[in-house]
Amino acid sequence: MKASDKLNEEIERECPVAGKLLSVLGRRVVFPPGIPEQAGQAKGKRFNATIGQILADDGHAAILPAMGALARGLPEEARDAAYLYSPVQGLEALRRAWRERQRREIDPSLPSSLPLVTVGLTHALSLLADLFAGEERAVAVPSPFWGNYRQIFAVRTGAQMLTSAAYRDGRFNPLAIAAALEALPAGKPAIALVNVPSNPGGYSPMDGERQELIASLRAIAEERPLLVVCDDAYAGLVYVEGVESRSLFWDLIGAHPNLLPVKVDGATKELSFFGGRVGFLTFPFAPGSIAAEALESKVKCLVRATVGSPVGASQSVVLQALRDGGVDGQIAELRDSLAERHRVLEQALADVDPALLRALPSNSGCFTLLELPDELGLDAEETRLDLLEHFDTGLVAIPPRFLRVAFCSVAAADIPELVHRIEQSLRARRGGE
Amino acid sequence: MKASDKLNEEIERECPVAGKLLSVLGRRVVFPPGIPEQAGQAKGKRFNATIGQILADDGHAAILPAMGALARGLPEEARDAAYLYSPVQGLEALRRAWRERQRREIDPSLPSSLPLVTVGLTHALSLLADLFAGEERAVAVPSPFWGNYRQIFAVRTGAQMLTSAAYRDGRFNPLAIAAALEALPAGKPAIALVNVPSNPGGYSPMDGERQELIASLRAIAEERPLLVVCDDAYAGLVYVEGVESRSLFWDLIGAHPNLLPVKVDGATKELSFFGGRVGFLTFPFAPGSIAAEALESKVKCLVRATVGSPVGASQSVVLQALRDGGVDGQIAELRDSLAERHRVLEQALADVDPALLRALPSNSGCFTLLELPDELGLDAEETRLDLLEHFDTGLVAIPPRFLRVAFCSVAAADIPELVHRIEQSLRARRGGE
Repeated sequence: MKASDKLNEEIERECPVAGKLLSVLGRRVVFPPGIPEQAGQAKGKRFNATIGQILADDGHAAILPAMGALARGLPEEARDAAYLYSPVQGLEALRRAWRERQRREIDPSLPSSLPLVTVGLTHALSLLADLFAGEERAVAVPSPFWGNYRQIFAVRTGAQMLTSAAYRDGRFNPLAIAAALEALPAGKPAIALVNVPSNPGGYSPMDGERQELIASLRAIAEERPLLVVCDDAYAGLVYVEGVESRSLFWDLIGAHPNLLPVKVDGATKELSFFGGRVGFLTFPFAPGSIAAEALESKVKCLVRATVGSPVGASQSVVLQALRDGGVDGQIAELRDSLAERHRVLEQALADVDPALLRALPSNSGCFTLLELPDELGLDAEETRLDLLEHFDTGLVAIPPRFLRVAFCSVAAADIPELVHRIEQSLRARRGGE
Repeated sequence: MKASDKLNEEIERECPVAGKLLSVLGRRVVFPPGIPEQAGQAKGKRFNATIGQILADDGHAAILPAMGALARGLPEEARDAAYLYSPVQGLEALRRAWRERQRREIDPSLPSSLPLVTVGLTHALSLLADLFAGEERAVAVPSPFWGNYRQIFAVRTGAQMLTSAAYRDGRFNPLAIAAALEALPAGKPAIALVNVPSNPGGYSPMDGERQELIASLRAIAEERPLLVVCDDAYAGLVYVEGVESRSLFWDLIGAHPNLLPVKVDGATKELSFFGGRVGFLTFPFAPGSIAAEALESKVKCLVRATVGSPVGASQSVVLQALRDGGVDGQIAELRDSLAERHRVLEQALADVDPALLRALPSNSGCFTLLELPDELGLDAEETRLDLLEHFDTGLVAIPPRFLRVAFCSVAAADIPELVHRIEQSLRARRGGE
């Protein structure tokens, strides 16, 4: 029996919905008994000539002095992990520390795997696309959405993006994913992308909306196998009293036998380490369980085939931080400064003539989304170019009529003037003036 | 006209062989006019609210003190590049510095692009697989070969691996790739993987062999469009007088209109930075040329769809090293210590009974390959397990009868005893004793 057949059988037995969701490629992959496995078995042997990395005579990493920028800041015992190959699944200590962090205030009875380390969150999404998407697979996402979802799922694997409006009448629409899948024949598997807090929306569903969203995902699972990708890139960045900041992943575990939730998160935004490329991919199965190990084997094969191994250097930086007692206070401080920018932005937007611009509801994350009223007759891309050319100001345009403001990258003191310039640009180009 | 059609037309016009080699996915991809492009246009504007990365009020990276392990070792002006998103193509300064390094002692008239930065060399290979492989595409490689080629090309994209013996009668076979492709119908495009110095062989072709290899690749191009992937992972690690260390990439540029050479190299081995994941992908076209820009657009789409962007943190460490006047001396020193290990290993192997073990020729890289003589009746995997269990020694087994010794990770002083243990294990299990 082929190794992949054995793995697929295990998955079908332990988690039938995962078996139904696997793509052609997803069914094919299995971590091979190659060099990483043989090197693992040789670890700690008196003579270990398995792995092709250069070691000094003392058995530690051979770090060139010119390459010491990172070594100098790390304790001696952390340097090997930074300069040598990471295990394909990531550094064990980091996986444990991140899992512990993910599960703070989470019911201990909810199962979750040791997160697999990826090269930023995009890599985790791309691995999920390889495992579960592919030609003709439907991928539902509220619109507007982060454009790279299209590259990751549709362009690369050939899946079909299905969208529906994320906002209706200026309010968050918790049924957007259900609406996007409405026309898909019953029984056809689908993937739902749930990004909370959202990009570009900067929104986390409020209590009633959250329950509606969960109920609608459960209802979809009545009709078809459903993978729910909880893209928690902006986890923790919540600025408004009463907004639930806990990941939907935890609410979806066990919600329906035909629903498989997975969690994607990482250090990029949570630890403000954009250049580090440390992401995590977590399955709703206990560490060491057959389902967790089978899916882990598949992911490891894909990690090895796409990037070799995740980034040891960045993982070491993140691990140092998680061991630092001060990190949570520092994160809270950074969040407070973003909350202040968010407050100032909301205030400035409240004063704008609604005939020019409507701010969609925003309570979290890094962005606020602005909508140009239909009757204004101006489009987003023209407005972006006008702002660049005449107002020394850069925003992101999302056609036809959305503008995304990344308040995370603008000082609070600059925000009123930023809003003023947007208003000026619109007023100047408004028809009939 | 679709953006991808325009790009494909440009490629077909400027480099017809590349047009013939592109995969279905390769034809589909084009870097989209999304957030990175809009953010690029907003760079330097007084108000820049385009990009979703957290900036401090002063416009620099918001680095948490607990995350400072890398920042502390970097000059202040290098910290933003380490902690913020890298451009999708990599840091401009690093691309320039690496190109300059690649081209030392290279004829200035030979064109080469600004290298695109990837997440280690595997990512560069994986991007090439996405661009040029896919179902049924033939990928020729001498055997034994690095096992991950199979995951990257065959398992992930569905390409077909074709192999032929890398050694015949204990000698390097420069015609292995030609032999691997012999049965493929003329006209069918193919990919050749040329890994010099080789893994697992530790071999660089000597002068006559090198010329034979080049001539045979040119002869293949007479029959079919041929992509030659020069996997230069171990570039520069040459230990024997008279062995050419210059990449075959340079010899293949312009060698035949139906032959497209590409270069894959990186900091992993060249700068002993295994955990950094900094690789490079270089095309044989001048920077800014239509062909270079079209292929760059396709690669950038795939980089964005697989990992978001390359690793800023590691790129910054590498860039510091390339700016350090001492780095070449340090690399030479490291190479000398590997050369010494290689010398000691050769000497120890020379004394082994050839009825037990034959060392294949090795002159470079990180490995030496051992072959168990057929008539000995012992297989590689059994030998590996016996060495682990009874001799406290780890090697990599390559079925049926090869053992790979990674001398790069063993102190010279330990090598004679390592060889002695291999010999003991074989002697003890030899039939009839």
